[in-house]
Amino acid sequence: MLYHIRMKLDDATRDDLYFMREALNEARAALSCGEIPVGAVLVSENEIIGRGFNRRVSQASPFAHAETRALEDAGKRMGNWRFDGCALYVTLEPCPMCAGAIVQTRVARVVYGAADPKAGAGGTLYDILRDPRMPHRCSVTALVLADESREMLREFFQSKRRAPL
Amino acid sequence: MLYHIRMKLDDATRDDLYFMREALNEARAALSCGEIPVGAVLVSENEIIGRGFNRRVSQASPFAHAETRALEDAGKRMGNWRFDGCALYVTLEPCPMCAGAIVQTRVARVVYGAADPKAGAGGTLYDILRDPRMPHRCSVTALVLADESREMLREFFQSKRRAPL
Repeated sequence: MLYHIRMKLDDATRDDLYFMREALNEARAALSCGEIPVGAVLVSENEIIGRGFNRRVSQASPFAHAETRALEDAGKRMGNWRFDGCALYVTLEPCPMCAGAIVQTRVARVVYGAADPKAGAGGTLYDILRDPRMPHRCSVTALVLADESREMLREFFQSKRRAPL
Repeated sequence: MLYHIRMKLDDATRDDLYFMREALNEARAALSCGEIPVGAVLVSENEIIGRGFNRRVSQASPFAHAETRALEDAGKRMGNWRFDGCALYVTLEPCPMCAGAIVQTRVARVVYGAADPKAGAGGTLYDILRDPRMPHRCSVTALVLADESREMLREFFQSKRRAPL
Protein backbone atom coordinates (compact mmCIF):
# COMPACT_ATOMS: atom_id res chain seq x y z
CA MET A 1 0.00 0.00 0.00
CA LEU A 2 1.07 3.57 -0.47
CA TYR A 3 0.54 6.21 2.15
CA HIS A 4 -0.06 9.78 1.15
CA ILE A 5 2.56 12.29 2.14
CA ARG A 6 0.70 15.19 3.59
CA MET A 7 2.52 18.09 2.00
CA LYS A 8 2.69 20.61 4.76
CA LEU A 9 4.75 23.29 3.13
CA ASP A 10 2.62 25.94 4.80
CA ASP A 11 3.66 24.51 8.15
CA ALA A 12 7.39 25.13 7.52
CA THR A 13 8.34 28.17 9.59
CA ARG A 14 11.40 30.37 9.19
CA ASP A 15 12.97 28.36 11.99
CA ASP A 16 12.29 25.19 10.01
CA LEU A 17 14.08 26.61 6.99
CA TYR A 18 17.02 27.66 9.17
CA PHE A 19 17.42 24.22 10.74
CA MET A 20 16.90 22.41 7.43
CA ARG A 21 19.74 24.52 6.00
CA GLU A 22 21.87 23.30 8.91
CA ALA A 23 20.91 19.71 8.01
CA LEU A 24 21.86 20.49 4.39
CA ASN A 25 25.27 21.66 5.68
CA GLU A 26 25.66 18.25 7.32
CA ALA A 27 24.73 16.62 4.01
CA ARG A 28 27.51 18.66 2.35
CA ALA A 29 29.94 17.31 4.96
CA ALA A 30 28.91 13.78 3.94
CA LEU A 31 29.50 14.72 0.31
CA SER A 32 33.01 15.94 1.05
CA CYS A 33 33.77 12.52 2.59
CA GLY A 34 32.49 10.75 -0.53
CA GLU A 35 29.35 9.57 1.26
CA ILE A 36 25.75 9.73 0.01
CA PRO A 37 24.79 13.29 1.03
CA VAL A 38 22.21 13.07 3.80
CA GLY A 39 22.42 15.25 6.92
CA ALA A 40 20.46 15.75 10.11
CA VAL A 41 20.28 17.99 13.17
CA LEU A 42 18.34 17.47 16.39
CA VAL A 43 16.86 20.62 17.91
CA SER A 44 15.69 21.31 21.45
CA GLU A 45 14.18 24.67 22.36
CA ASN A 46 15.55 26.25 19.20
CA GLU A 47 19.10 25.00 19.82
CA ILE A 48 20.94 22.28 17.94
CA ILE A 49 21.81 19.51 20.42
CA GLY A 50 22.97 16.87 17.91
CA ARG A 51 24.42 16.75 14.41
CA GLY A 52 25.09 13.92 12.04
CA PHE A 53 25.66 12.94 8.47
CA ASN A 54 25.65 9.69 6.61
CA ARG A 55 28.90 7.82 7.35
CA ARG A 56 28.13 4.31 6.22
CA VAL A 57 31.35 3.99 4.26
CA SER A 58 33.74 5.82 6.60
CA GLN A 59 32.38 4.13 9.74
CA ALA A 60 31.96 0.83 7.88
CA SER A 61 28.56 0.42 9.48
CA PRO A 62 25.09 0.06 7.97
CA PHE A 63 23.69 1.81 11.04
CA ALA A 64 25.60 5.06 10.42
CA HIS A 65 22.78 7.00 8.77
CA ALA A 66 22.51 10.75 9.38
CA GLU A 67 19.57 10.33 11.75
CA THR A 68 21.20 7.74 14.03
CA ARG A 69 24.42 9.78 14.09
CA ALA A 70 22.51 12.94 15.14
CA LEU A 71 20.57 11.03 17.82
CA GLU A 72 23.78 9.42 19.12
CA ASP A 73 25.56 12.78 19.16
CA ALA A 74 22.73 14.34 21.16
CA GLY A 75 22.46 11.32 23.48
CA LYS A 76 26.14 11.56 24.36
CA ARG A 77 26.07 15.34 24.83
CA MET A 78 22.90 15.35 26.92
CA GLY A 79 23.47 12.06 28.78
CA ASN A 80 19.86 11.21 27.95
CA TRP A 81 18.09 9.31 25.18
CA ARG A 82 14.61 10.68 25.65
CA PHE A 83 14.12 13.49 23.18
CA ASP A 84 10.60 14.52 24.17
CA GLY A 85 9.88 17.96 22.79
CA CYS A 86 12.78 17.79 20.28
CA ALA A 87 12.59 18.14 16.49
CA LEU A 88 14.76 16.19 14.06
CA TYR A 89 15.57 17.84 10.73
CA VAL A 90 16.80 15.46 8.06
CA THR A 91 17.38 16.12 4.38
CA LEU A 92 15.94 12.76 3.20
CA GLU A 93 12.86 10.91 4.42
CA PRO A 94 13.90 8.40 7.11
CA CYS A 95 14.15 4.68 6.23
CA PRO A 96 12.37 2.09 8.43
CA MET A 97 15.50 1.59 10.59
CA CYS A 98 15.83 5.31 11.32
CA ALA A 99 12.08 5.84 11.71
CA GLY A 100 12.09 3.04 14.29
CA ALA A 101 15.03 4.64 16.12
CA ILE A 102 13.31 8.05 16.05
CA VAL A 103 10.10 6.65 17.54
CA GLN A 104 12.09 4.84 20.25
CA THR A 105 13.88 8.00 21.31
CA ARG A 106 10.53 9.85 21.54
CA VAL A 107 11.42 12.67 19.14
CA ALA A 108 8.34 14.92 19.04
CA ARG A 109 8.58 16.17 15.48
CA VAL A 110 10.34 15.17 12.26
CA VAL A 111 10.93 17.64 9.43
CA TYR A 112 12.35 16.10 6.28
CA GLY A 113 13.44 17.27 2.88
CA ALA A 114 13.20 14.94 -0.12
CA ALA A 115 10.83 11.99 -0.08
CA ASP A 116 12.43 8.55 -0.59
CA PRO A 117 10.35 6.44 -2.98
CA LYS A 118 12.60 3.40 -2.39
CA ALA A 119 12.63 3.17 1.40
CA GLY A 120 10.73 6.13 2.90
CA ALA A 121 9.08 5.35 6.23
CA GLY A 122 7.79 8.87 6.90
CA GLY A 123 4.75 8.61 4.66
CA THR A 124 5.97 7.12 1.38
CA LEU A 125 6.30 3.31 1.77
CA TYR A 126 5.48 3.28 5.47
CA ASP A 127 4.21 5.78 7.99
CA ILE A 128 6.06 4.45 11.03
CA LEU A 129 6.51 7.93 12.52
CA ARG A 130 2.78 8.54 12.81
CA ASP A 131 1.48 5.02 13.40
CA PRO A 132 -1.15 5.15 16.18
CA ARG A 133 -0.37 1.49 17.03
CA MET A 134 3.22 2.31 18.01
CA PRO A 135 4.12 3.30 21.59
CA HIS A 136 5.11 6.82 20.44
CA ARG A 137 4.15 9.05 17.52
CA CYS A 138 5.80 12.11 15.94
CA SER A 139 4.33 14.96 14.01
CA VAL A 140 5.79 15.14 10.51
CA THR A 141 6.46 18.02 8.15
CA ALA A 142 7.58 16.75 4.74
CA LEU A 143 9.30 18.23 1.69
CA VAL A 144 11.02 21.23 3.34
CA LEU A 145 13.78 22.45 0.98
CA ALA A 146 13.26 19.15 -0.81
CA ASP A 147 14.67 20.45 -4.10
CA GLU A 148 18.04 21.35 -2.54
CA SER A 149 18.31 17.93 -0.95
CA ARG A 150 17.24 16.04 -4.07
CA GLU A 151 19.61 18.04 -6.26
CA MET A 152 22.57 17.21 -4.02
CA LEU A 153 21.68 13.51 -4.15
CA ARG A 154 21.20 13.65 -7.93
CA GLU A 155 24.61 15.28 -8.45
CA PHE A 156 26.28 12.73 -6.17
CA PHE A 157 24.90 9.74 -8.05
CA GLN A 158 25.57 11.37 -11.42
CA SER A 159 29.22 11.99 -10.49
CA LYS A 160 29.52 8.37 -9.31
CA ARG A 161 28.27 7.14 -12.68
CA ARG A 162 30.73 9.45 -14.43
CA ALA A 163 33.72 8.38 -12.34
CA PRO A 164 36.26 6.15 -14.11
CA LEU A 165 36.08 2.50 -13.03
CA MET B 1 -3.80 -2.82 9.02
CA LEU B 2 -2.71 -6.17 10.39
CA TYR B 3 -0.56 -8.55 8.45
CA HIS B 4 -0.96 -12.26 8.94
CA ILE B 5 1.94 -14.09 10.47
CA ARG B 6 2.45 -17.14 8.36
CA MET B 7 2.95 -19.77 10.99
CA LYS B 8 5.64 -21.94 9.52
CA LEU B 9 6.26 -24.30 12.39
CA ASP B 10 6.67 -27.14 9.93
CA ASP B 11 9.57 -25.24 8.40
CA ALA B 12 11.58 -25.19 11.65
CA THR B 13 14.31 -27.77 11.30
CA ARG B 14 16.39 -29.38 14.04
CA ASP B 15 19.09 -26.84 13.20
CA ASP B 16 16.56 -24.06 13.71
CA LEU B 17 15.71 -25.37 17.17
CA TYR B 18 19.43 -25.62 18.01
CA PHE B 19 20.17 -22.04 16.98
CA MET B 20 17.01 -20.67 18.60
CA ARG B 21 18.16 -22.29 21.85
CA GLU B 22 21.45 -20.42 21.42
CA ALA B 23 19.45 -17.20 20.97
CA LEU B 24 17.52 -18.09 24.14
CA ASN B 25 20.87 -18.44 25.94
CA GLU B 26 21.68 -14.89 24.84
CA ALA B 27 18.28 -13.78 26.18
CA ARG B 28 19.22 -15.37 29.53
CA ALA B 29 22.44 -13.33 29.51
CA ALA B 30 20.32 -10.18 29.10
CA LEU B 31 18.17 -11.31 32.01
CA SER B 32 21.19 -11.75 34.26
CA CYS B 33 22.15 -8.11 33.50
CA GLY B 34 18.66 -6.92 34.45
CA GLU B 35 17.77 -6.25 30.80
CA ILE B 36 14.59 -7.21 28.94
CA PRO B 37 15.43 -10.79 27.87
CA VAL B 38 15.83 -10.84 24.11
CA GLY B 39 18.72 -12.64 22.42
CA ALA B 40 19.95 -13.23 18.88
CA VAL B 41 22.56 -15.18 16.94
CA LEU B 42 23.62 -14.77 13.32
CA VAL B 43 24.45 -17.99 11.50
CA SER B 44 26.49 -18.57 8.35
CA GLU B 45 26.86 -22.07 6.93
CA ASN B 46 25.69 -23.62 10.17
CA GLU B 47 28.15 -21.64 12.31
CA ILE B 48 27.39 -18.79 14.67
CA ILE B 49 29.25 -15.70 13.46
CA GLY B 50 27.59 -13.12 15.72
CA ARG B 51 25.86 -13.04 19.11
CA GLY B 52 23.96 -10.35 20.92
CA PHE B 53 21.47 -9.61 23.60
CA ASN B 54 19.44 -6.60 24.52
CA ARG B 55 21.69 -4.08 26.30
CA ARG B 56 19.65 -0.90 26.14
CA VAL B 57 20.18 -0.12 29.83
CA SER B 58 23.82 -1.22 30.23
CA GLN B 59 24.94 0.43 26.99
CA ALA B 60 22.64 3.41 27.60
CA SER B 61 21.59 3.27 23.98
CA PRO B 62 18.19 2.81 22.36
CA PHE B 63 19.93 1.09 19.44
CA ALA B 64 21.32 -1.75 21.56
CA HIS B 65 18.69 -4.35 20.71
CA ALA B 66 19.71 -8.00 20.45
CA GLU B 67 19.53 -7.97 16.64
CA THR B 68 21.77 -4.91 16.13
CA ARG B 69 24.26 -6.28 18.68
CA ALA B 70 24.45 -9.63 16.86
CA LEU B 71 24.84 -7.90 13.47
CA GLU B 72 27.53 -5.58 14.87
CA ASP B 73 29.34 -8.50 16.47
CA ALA B 74 29.35 -10.41 13.17
CA GLY B 75 30.31 -7.31 11.17
CA LYS B 76 33.35 -6.73 13.36
CA ARG B 77 34.40 -10.39 13.34
CA MET B 78 33.95 -10.83 9.59
CA GLY B 79 35.04 -7.33 8.50
CA ASN B 80 31.99 -7.30 6.28
CA TRP B 81 28.44 -6.05 6.61
CA ARG B 82 26.82 -8.03 3.83
CA PHE B 83 25.24 -11.09 5.34
CA ASP B 84 23.94 -12.69 2.15
CA GLY B 85 23.12 -16.32 2.83
CA CYS B 86 23.07 -15.82 6.62
CA ALA B 87 20.21 -16.54 9.02
CA LEU B 88 19.37 -14.42 12.06
CA TYR B 89 17.73 -16.18 14.99
CA VAL B 90 16.04 -13.86 17.48
CA THR B 91 13.79 -14.72 20.40
CA LEU B 92 11.32 -11.83 19.80
CA GLU B 93 9.91 -10.52 16.52
CA PRO B 94 12.09 -7.61 15.31
CA CYS B 95 10.86 -4.02 15.74
CA PRO B 96 10.86 -1.63 12.73
CA MET B 97 14.36 -0.35 13.59
CA CYS B 98 15.85 -3.85 13.70
CA ALA B 99 13.86 -5.07 10.68
CA GLY B 100 15.24 -2.10 8.74
CA ALA B 101 18.79 -2.92 9.87
CA ILE B 102 18.32 -6.59 8.94
CA VAL B 103 17.12 -5.71 5.45
CA GLN B 104 20.04 -3.32 4.98
CA THR B 105 22.59 -5.95 5.89
CA ARG B 106 21.00 -8.40 3.42
CA VAL B 107 20.34 -11.19 5.90
CA ALA B 108 18.73 -14.00 3.88
CA ARG B 109 16.48 -15.50 6.52
CA VAL B 110 15.02 -14.45 9.87
CA VAL B 111 13.76 -17.01 12.39
CA TYR B 112 12.01 -15.52 15.38
CA GLY B 113 10.40 -16.75 18.56
CA ALA B 114 7.55 -14.80 20.14
CA ALA B 115 5.48 -12.37 18.07
CA ASP B 116 5.42 -8.76 19.30
CA PRO B 117 1.91 -7.32 19.14
CA LYS B 118 3.18 -3.86 20.16
CA ALA B 119 5.96 -3.29 17.65
CA GLY B 120 6.47 -6.41 15.51
CA ALA B 121 7.77 -5.67 12.02
CA GLY B 122 8.14 -9.31 10.94
CA GLY B 123 4.48 -9.87 10.12
CA THR B 124 2.52 -8.45 13.06
CA LEU B 125 2.26 -4.63 12.70
CA TYR B 126 4.50 -4.43 9.64
CA ASP B 127 6.07 -6.90 7.26
CA ILE B 128 9.26 -4.97 6.51
CA LEU B 129 11.35 -8.15 6.19
CA ARG B 130 9.30 -9.44 3.26
CA ASP B 131 8.22 -6.21 1.58
CA PRO B 132 8.65 -6.58 -2.20
CA ARG B 133 9.07 -2.78 -2.49
CA MET B 134 12.23 -2.79 -0.37
CA PRO B 135 15.68 -3.27 -1.97
CA HIS B 136 16.15 -6.60 -0.17
CA ARG B 137 13.79 -9.24 1.20
CA CYS B 138 14.27 -12.03 3.77
CA SER B 139 12.46 -15.29 4.20
CA VAL B 140 10.82 -15.49 7.63
CA THR B 141 10.05 -18.39 9.93
CA ALA B 142 7.97 -17.24 12.91
CA LEU B 143 7.08 -18.62 16.34
CA VAL B 144 9.98 -21.05 16.80
CA LEU B 145 10.22 -21.92 20.53
CA ALA B 146 7.90 -18.95 21.04
CA ASP B 147 6.59 -20.25 24.38
CA GLU B 148 10.07 -20.32 25.94
CA SER B 149 10.76 -16.78 24.77
CA ARG B 150 7.38 -15.43 25.87
CA GLU B 151 7.63 -17.11 29.25
CA MET B 152 11.05 -15.51 29.90
CA LEU B 153 9.64 -12.08 29.00
CA ARG B 154 6.54 -12.65 31.14
CA GLU B 155 8.64 -13.62 34.18
CA PHE B 156 10.90 -10.61 33.69
CA PHE B 157 8.04 -8.12 33.62
CA GLN B 158 6.25 -9.87 36.49
CA SER B 159 9.39 -9.66 38.66
CA LYS B 160 9.74 -5.96 37.79
CA ARG B 161 6.20 -5.31 38.95
CA ARG B 162 6.91 -7.20 42.16
CA ALA B 163 10.18 -5.37 42.90
CA PRO B 164 10.05 -2.82 45.75
CA LEU B 165 10.05 0.79 44.58
